[in-house]
Amino acid sequence: MDSDFGIPRELSDLQKHRTLYEPEIPPCLQGTTVRVEFGDATTAADPSDAHTISRSFPHTYGQPLAHFLRANVKVPDAQIITEHHPIRVGVVFCGRQSPGGHNVIWGLHSALKIHNPNSSLLGFLGGSEGLFAQKTLEITDDILSSYKNQGGYDLLGRTKDQIRTTEQVTASLNTCKALKLDGLVIIGGVTSNTDAAQLAETFAEAKCTTKVVGVPVTLNGDLRNQFVETNVGFDTICKVNSQLISNVCIDALSAEKYYYFIRLMGRKASHVALECTLQSHPNMVILGEEVAASKLTLFDLTTQICDSVQARAEQEKNHGVILLPEGLIESIPEVYALLQEIHGLHRQGVSVDNISSQLSPWASALFEFLPPFIKKQLLLHPESDDSAQLSQIETEKLLAHLVEVEMNKRSKEGTYKGKKFNAICHFFGYQARGCLPSKFDCDYAYVLGHICYHILAAGLNGYMATVTNLKNPVNKWRCGAAPITAMMTVKQWARGPGAASVGKPAVNPASIDLKGKAYELLRQNATKFLLDDVYRNPGPLQFDGPGSDAKAVTLCVEDQDYMGRIKKLREHLEKVRSIVKPGCSQDVLKAALSAMASVTDVLSVMSAPSFNFQTTI
Amino acid sequence: MDSDFGIPRELSDLQKHRTLYEPEIPPCLQGTTVRVEFGDATTAADPSDAHTISRSFPHTYGQPLAHFLRANVKVPDAQIITEHHPIRVGVVFCGRQSPGGHNVIWGLHSALKIHNPNSSLLGFLGGSEGLFAQKTLEITDDILSSYKNQGGYDLLGRTKDQIRTTEQVTASLNTCKALKLDGLVIIGGVTSNTDAAQLAETFAEAKCTTKVVGVPVTLNGDLRNQFVETNVGFDTICKVNSQLISNVCIDALSAEKYYYFIRLMGRKASHVALECTLQSHPNMVILGEEVAASKLTLFDLTTQICDSVQARAEQEKNHGVILLPEGLIESIPEVYALLQEIHGLHRQGVSVDNISSQLSPWASALFEFLPPFIKKQLLLHPESDDSAQLSQIETEKLLAHLVEVEMNKRSKEGTYKGKKFNAICHFFGYQARGCLPSKFDCDYAYVLGHICYHILAAGLNGYMATVTNLKNPVNKWRCGAAPITAMMTVKQWARGPGAASVGKPAVNPASIDLKGKAYELLRQNATKFLLDDVYRNPGPLQFDGPGSDAKAVTLCVEDQDYMGRIKKLREHLEKVRSIVKPGCSQDVLKAALSAMASVTDVLSVMSAPSFNFQTTI
Repeated sequence: MDSDFGIPRELSDLQKHRTLYEPEIPPCLQGTTVRVEFGDATTAADPSDAHTISRSFPHTYGQPLAHFLRANVKVPDAQIITEHHPIRVGVVFCGRQSPGGHNVIWGLHSALKIHNPNSSLLGFLGGSEGLFAQKTLEITDDILSSYKNQGGYDLLGRTKDQIRTTEQVTASLNTCKALKLDGLVIIGGVTSNTDAAQLAETFAEAKCTTKVVGVPVTLNGDLRNQFVETNVGFDTICKVNSQLISNVCIDALSAEKYYYFIRLMGRKASHVALECTLQSHPNMVILGEEVAASKLTLFDLTTQICDSVQARAEQEKNHGVILLPEGLIESIPEVYALLQEIHGLHRQGVSVDNISSQLSPWASALFEFLPPFIKKQLLLHPESDDSAQLSQIETEKLLAHLVEVEMNKRSKEGTYKGKKFNAICHFFGYQARGCLPSKFDCDYAYVLGHICYHILAAGLNGYMATVTNLKNPVNKWRCGAAPITAMMTVKQWARGPGAASVGKPAVNPASIDLKGKAYELLRQNATKFLLDDVYRNPGPLQFDGPGSDAKAVTLCVEDQDYMGRIKKLREHLEKVRSIVKPGCSQDVLKAALSAMASVTDVLSVMSAPSFNFQTTI
Repeated sequence: MDSDFGIPRELSDLQKHRTLYEPEIPPCLQGTTVRVEFGDATTAADPSDAHTISRSFPHTYGQPLAHFLRANVKVPDAQIITEHHPIRVGVVFCGRQSPGGHNVIWGLHSALKIHNPNSSLLGFLGGSEGLFAQKTLEITDDILSSYKNQGGYDLLGRTKDQIRTTEQVTASLNTCKALKLDGLVIIGGVTSNTDAAQLAETFAEAKCTTKVVGVPVTLNGDLRNQFVETNVGFDTICKVNSQLISNVCIDALSAEKYYYFIRLMGRKASHVALECTLQSHPNMVILGEEVAASKLTLFDLTTQICDSVQARAEQEKNHGVILLPEGLIESIPEVYALLQEIHGLHRQGVSVDNISSQLSPWASALFEFLPPFIKKQLLLHPESDDSAQLSQIETEKLLAHLVEVEMNKRSKEGTYKGKKFNAICHFFGYQARGCLPSKFDCDYAYVLGHICYHILAAGLNGYMATVTNLKNPVNKWRCGAAPITAMMTVKQWARGPGAASVGKPAVNPASIDLKGKAYELLRQNATKFLLDDVYRNPGPLQFDGPGSDAKAVTLCVEDQDYMGRIKKLREHLEKVRSIVKPGCSQDVLKAALSAMASVTDVLSVMSAPSFNFQTTI
């Protein structure tokens, strides 16, 4: 089977055409000179977590930000690296497959060879298991040729998205030593990047010279924070799903007799569902974050949907499209509590057949109320990150069922006078993951691959490659690197007995910011979407012509470019210092003191320790 | 609700771009002169059906083929129509929505206005129900503007795909008379075109001057015969589904742990499944036609899939993708028989709860063997064409379940040594129907719309608009019209007590020709597809650049252009006649007689009455 990896394949005309596409590189990465400017030492977003994180990561916490600069930019204290020794780098697909992953490898390979043709890149075969077992494939331009700008992870394959146990970490260390790697690049989402940070710390502790670099590649789009605006694959997945959702909307509008309940992949957070809603304007979306924040029960959700169906029926609309993120099921308070009990019993080794009889009375009552198919799915063993097997739980069928029962009841009682309620359920997940990546994802992934090389050339360990200002054209993109530890948070409460991650710093999935601009945009349009059928079809993903340069709505609507703005702040501080030099007038000093005192007061209040809603679903 | 039809919508950039696309028109339809050449009188494909059809359609059976010619072509006996009175035409979406339907209306509107700006086009709102109720919308260029080259049927909507009962036919007749329609254009698949033929006959009988024209628009691709090479929508649907299938293949290959069972829409016949297989090369496809021809039981199918899983596991391949057409369930002999019993009991008015207790002993045994979810689906009321509710029966889950049980058994017995078998099931249907139509479907539908006008201008009734030679560029397309009655067949046996269509001539869905070139191509590649993972990704549907002009594999591989070839035959016959004129030499006459005697002998044998496999699943 391993011999299949990296072999040339039969490509369709479009695939061939895409292999010829050359992603653009921002000016700062062009040429053969690497210029790094280091920013201030980093901290964690929540100051109360900082201590815990620094204790867990003594070697890699608090490292400075790094900015990669154009060769002709004059920055006095930038470090210029002109000599490039040949280096050996390993790369591994760690997370679930996400469109664009191949381009990270291509970008990295290309940067390695530009700076020294004797550098080499080893791909680990079969993902993390290949890393543990030292199974590699040397990446060459020849091997890459039929994987450039292509979807899937089939160049190297993947297995588990976990490098966590002592055995796994030790095996990785041994591999890096045995293969004399100067760098190890880990491609994945929140879990894999947490593991990357842990590896970096362990390697530093063990005086292993291999530097570990993480790359934010996950279709869920939940590896988001100050430094990371979006993830490789999110753009493609949202475009593919939005097209399918729009197709369903148009279908609904043509026949006017069905309600479509569509569940979307995306793990705990609802980023994919929000983006798809803003692209295709279905009638409703139920975001997990909203449900969690408002503590909406199954009954509340059912009532909300039924009332919407009824309001539409009064306008003679007997069709509709409702989106549900797969993480929704865990956001419903009583179901979450039920799942916690079930997972607790799993951890105690109770067999599936016996779980239902050992539930607490209230959990048992809820469980017995649910239809059989969902019972079976809730009883599935939890995933490695302690969440339920979200892709397997048919929340859309559960809600469609509950709504149907309620609508029939309202019909009988005469409170609902519309046509008979008919639901059709869909799950859009696996059919999008292998898609040819969008131009945006091709470019973004390729640039991140280049940055990985620059991080290694600068000798940095435990960093993630970052690109900010992404909503602007590629030539305005800012390239840099941030310590992964600066992206971590610490969960402050237990999630059931024996959960392993409690209190451990981790890169946690970011939930939707209910105070953010993207959510605000949804709120403003919610009634129009619900009642007016303003369906919008972004159409199939295009590679040429109109639409091919479209970017995610949620990316474009938010204030972005944290890295650029943090640089700008530094310039302001420098300027204050240069104006208020010893010898300046009393008035200038007085004004500066007063203004700065006010600034520091405000900031002290704002950055006081608190529970951070954004990372705690 | 009706007021929503035809209103301007918010369009995405790509949708706007597509509204600007102008489909090409073949040379024969350019200009304002219509030239019609009539061919020979038509017969039915199966001579044994001819008598029944001619009795049912005394006014419309046996009419000649019509070919529309270029203005500068010199054909002495072509009818030239230069004067174009203003006419009033009605158009109705009758079948299930299929991408490209809007372009038929656009093409028809455009042709009407080119030939006489005073002609008018009325669209029936809400499909057949709008036709019965005389609810219309006058089609204008303004209304069309945001629907050009767009998917769905939402310009006018649709309801039932049936104009069949006496009440329905009478209502249609009254509408056509009341609105003083010169023509009625019916857009739909096999059922709708059968109804169109029936309306044409009834109108002729009733001396109603409205001429009825059918247009082959169905994503199923099963309205195929000598005159019709493919249907509007089939190209788009197969491209959208092939992309999703390919994505799943790449996903399977990346993670190497799942078998994906994908069911595809397409009604009884397996055209969509065959085309998608040839485009994306999944490991297996189980065509309903193969299963029916070989009388494969559920047990046979399970064994066949399990053996394939096992053969792949021996090559260390623990993943795969298996396609199933939705019609498969009706092709499995014992399930078919069970469904016949269930539908028979439905017709006798037995309630769903009592059906299982009234089955015959063997049917009851099979029924009890099946898992609960499939039992519930098999008990659903049959559709108007007497088939099961194919979109609702999860055959993919049934087979995945049976295969899993068998693989676990083989594992336990030690005959299977591969990894644990894991299946994920998908149904690809509704999410493709509303797609923006491919360039091919845009062009094909638009040209068919033009042809509808030419048919009406020539005063023809009961014809279907046809384009042949479709695998060649648009400027080589041949435009014509064939009487719908010439496409009919008569089912020779009963399908359970009380089935309405027995013995009635109809345009029946064409099944896959197991002796045809497309199927042959599949057979040649089946082993390679099964074992070598030669997955191919046609990618998302493109409107610009490479791939945007791709055509269906099954369209390109078959010998086509029946209309062109039948014209060629006529030329040969003319030539023989002109060479062998009275006065020619004895030798020439002798040679001609001998050659022609042999030709007529062969043809007599070949065209003797027989059951025609192609239309009898």
